[in-house]
Amino acid sequence: MPTYHARVNERPIISMLTDFGLDGAVAACKGVILSICRDAQIVDVAHTIPKYSIRDGAWIMRAVLPYQPVGTHLGVVDPGVGTRRRAIGIQTGRGDVLIGPDNGLLPPAAEVLGGIRAVRILDNRDLWLLVATSTFHGRDIFSPVAAHLAAGDAPFEAVGTQLRPDDLVRLDEPQAVIREGALETEVIYVDSFGNIRLAGSREALFEALGDPAERSVTVEFGGNGAHGPVREETGFRPTFGAARAGQSLLYVDSSGNLALADNQGNAAARLGISPGRSVRITLA
Amino acid sequence: MPTYHARVNERPIISMLTDFGLDGAVAACKGVILSICRDAQIVDVAHTIPKYSIRDGAWIMRAVLPYQPVGTHLGVVDPGVGTRRRAIGIQTGRGDVLIGPDNGLLPPAAEVLGGIRAVRILDNRDLWLLVATSTFHGRDIFSPVAAHLAAGDAPFEAVGTQLRPDDLVRLDEPQAVIREGALETEVIYVDSFGNIRLAGSREALFEALGDPAERSVTVEFGGNGAHGPVREETGFRPTFGAARAGQSLLYVDSSGNLALADNQGNAAARLGISPGRSVRITLA
Amino acid sequence: MPTYHARVNERPIISMLTDFGLDGAVAACKGVILSICRDAQIVDVAHTIPKYSIRDGAWIMRAVLPYQPVGTHLGVVDPGVGTRRRAIGIQTGRGDVLIGPDNGLLPPAAEVLGGIRAVRILDNRDLWLLVATSTFHGRDIFSPVAAHLAAGDAPFEAVGTQLRPDDLVRLDEPQAVIREGALETEVIYVDSFGNIRLAGSREALFEALGDPAERSVTVEFGGNGAHGPVREETGFRPTFGAARAGQSLLYVDSSGNLALADNQGNAAARLGISPGRSVRITLA
Repeated sequence: MPTYHARVNERPIISMLTDFGLDGAVAACKGVILSICRDAQIVDVAHTIPKYSIRDGAWIMRAVLPYQPVGTHLGVVDPGVGTRRRAIGIQTGRGDVLIGPDNGLLPPAAEVLGGIRAVRILDNRDLWLLVATSTFHGRDIFSPVAAHLAAGDAPFEAVGTQLRPDDLVRLDEPQAVIREGALETEVIYVDSFGNIRLAGSREALFEALGDPAERSVTVEFGGNGAHGPVREETGFRPTFGAARAGQSLLYVDSSGNLALADNQGNAAARLGISPGRSVRITLA
Repeated sequence: MPTYHARVNERPIISMLTDFGLDGAVAACKGVILSICRDAQIVDVAHTIPKYSIRDGAWIMRAVLPYQPVGTHLGVVDPGVGTRRRAIGIQTGRGDVLIGPDNGLLPPAAEVLGGIRAVRILDNRDLWLLVATSTFHGRDIFSPVAAHLAAGDAPFEAVGTQLRPDDLVRLDEPQAVIREGALETEVIYVDSFGNIRLAGSREALFEALGDPAERSVTVEFGGNGAHGPVREETGFRPTFGAARAGQSLLYVDSSGNLALADNQGNAAARLGISPGRSVRITLA
Repeated sequence: MPTYHARVNERPIISMLTDFGLDGAVAACKGVILSICRDAQIVDVAHTIPKYSIRDGAWIMRAVLPYQPVGTHLGVVDPGVGTRRRAIGIQTGRGDVLIGPDNGLLPPAAEVLGGIRAVRILDNRDLWLLVATSTFHGRDIFSPVAAHLAAGDAPFEAVGTQLRPDDLVRLDEPQAVIREGALETEVIYVDSFGNIRLAGSREALFEALGDPAERSVTVEFGGNGAHGPVREETGFRPTFGAARAGQSLLYVDSSGNLALADNQGNAAARLGISPGRSVRITLA
């Protein structure tokens, strides 16, 4: 019975990232999805993204989605719900479809899923709930469209009008820059362990400083309105356990980004660091 | 193979709302459910309901369950566990079964799922775990009964003794009342965004004040023991983005209730508001 | 079509307990699992275990896993990730496989799942992701190994080199001791309700004090560096509702452990108690 096994092995994946919190809004979306696509395998990516933080949501989608099977991926961090911001679907080179608002949330993930193959505006109301409110597009538009695609009820082309990829709203992407023997970069995310994730790779670090394995490095966070500059002297290590408990380390995180952590501690809390702070890494 | 596809498309839905938190108690319930009904599609409605808050739980079940497929819905906010409070199942007009304690948690949701068709006390111990503790009926009674119903092992009539719907414990339902050119109502829920949900609909507001679209309105929260009265002057808007960032708005939420929010802010935190506060809405 | 039903009824269970928090790391693991075993029924046991608290994780796995169907159970609280600590699989007498680091997290659960039948080191890299980072073994090693086992792609023997059960790292197991008319024990867990779980059973209490049902008992928490001793006079009750709202009670919890709670309150917060505190129970 190969057809049967194939079918079971192909339960459609629908992942969800939102800033909806844990008090029921996500479950309303899931009910809509399961009413259309009962067999969906739903993966909660994250729902406690800081409210309205498109940037945090984009970073997590980009880090997590490459590990998902090809599927339909909802991203809803949507301060502009009910305004004229567009609702969009992005088809990726790998074959996924990303569904959400056109506010910069989706493109970074699409780029690491084989790139953006096609974009459409979700203006085909036949795929929405019958009544769409102006404050909850996650439930009324994004979820039913995603579920129809996942269920195979509709091809991607049916979701609505084509849009040129160049017309998508994009976030500024933080970049690591090599300047005068330093790597200048930015805090892009602070994870639940308090590990401070930075733009830039091992290769960029080595190009800027040479191999820092046997040397101390200084990580300097620039001041901003609320906080003065912070300097941390540390070492470049292969993993947490290569530092003593409580000691800091610079390392390459599981997404390939540079990061600063305290082994078995919370570096971001200790140093008072949040996303967006500028960073300068030099040999000590 | 129509039988096969039908069966897969009909994976039974079991939703769960509890105040158990995130540290394992919910997983014990899920293990019991999956031991009886391996194919269940379990939907977490919410598990971080404020401890013992029957009212918050009832509100969320009523808001979320209409979006679920017909299924078996567990609600466990149960300060009276192990006392003589009854354990009940409610069959709805739509065909769902709601399972939980008889303390007011379930009836509001049942009313919006086609009404209460039948009620039974869960006194058939054949459907419980073999050993039922006196402190964890969620795991030992409610979950196995729900799973047997969802699996089709037992008809609703098998769960136990019939009870008259009029004998159910009920919560007081907050109502919006029109009095002297004002809409008098109450805070029924504060969501994770800090949006303040009120009893009463758009129709009640328009009947009390006329169309307030071009007018300012005053939302006055009554004082209580801990807090003095609070007045907020605002506008009636179709969605968040129709107010400036940080500005408040009165709107119709995604459940059809009136609500007060700050666009991209947290109105409840700014104003110090929690459920149960009285509210009076007038033209400014 | 009995084969079909059997297959659907046997969707493989994979449970997950981690200290990864709620911001995406768990979803990366789930994506890896579903890429290998699309049909898995994944059960989230808990992901907000206090960071690096092997002891809390071990307690919850032991409390929750006996209620799961036989399956593959991931436990990842792993301060030693990337060091020479071993990655292991434990086969239980009941037929489960537990997967995680060799740091004491897994054995307590294995003991209550029929005991430890066999142990292997996860050194067969064919079952890992192609690229395994040194900071995220949950995603790169533990999840794919668990998924291959759950999918039936590999027998337990294929995961790697055999290890003697006696060579496993073990936690100290807190014990209740009867001494001079008192039960001397320890706080082993504080749950999300603030209920204080203690080592020791009803039988141990009765052996130490006789039947305390009609008597008052004193629960004394020993001082530690940060806190002085705390005494609570209370009664031994069958369930929460046998105490007045706000009143404390000593009871047997749903895992068979002694516990101290406030009915509809938070005893641990009121008394300032956390795991590890010594406890002495006497007749008042």
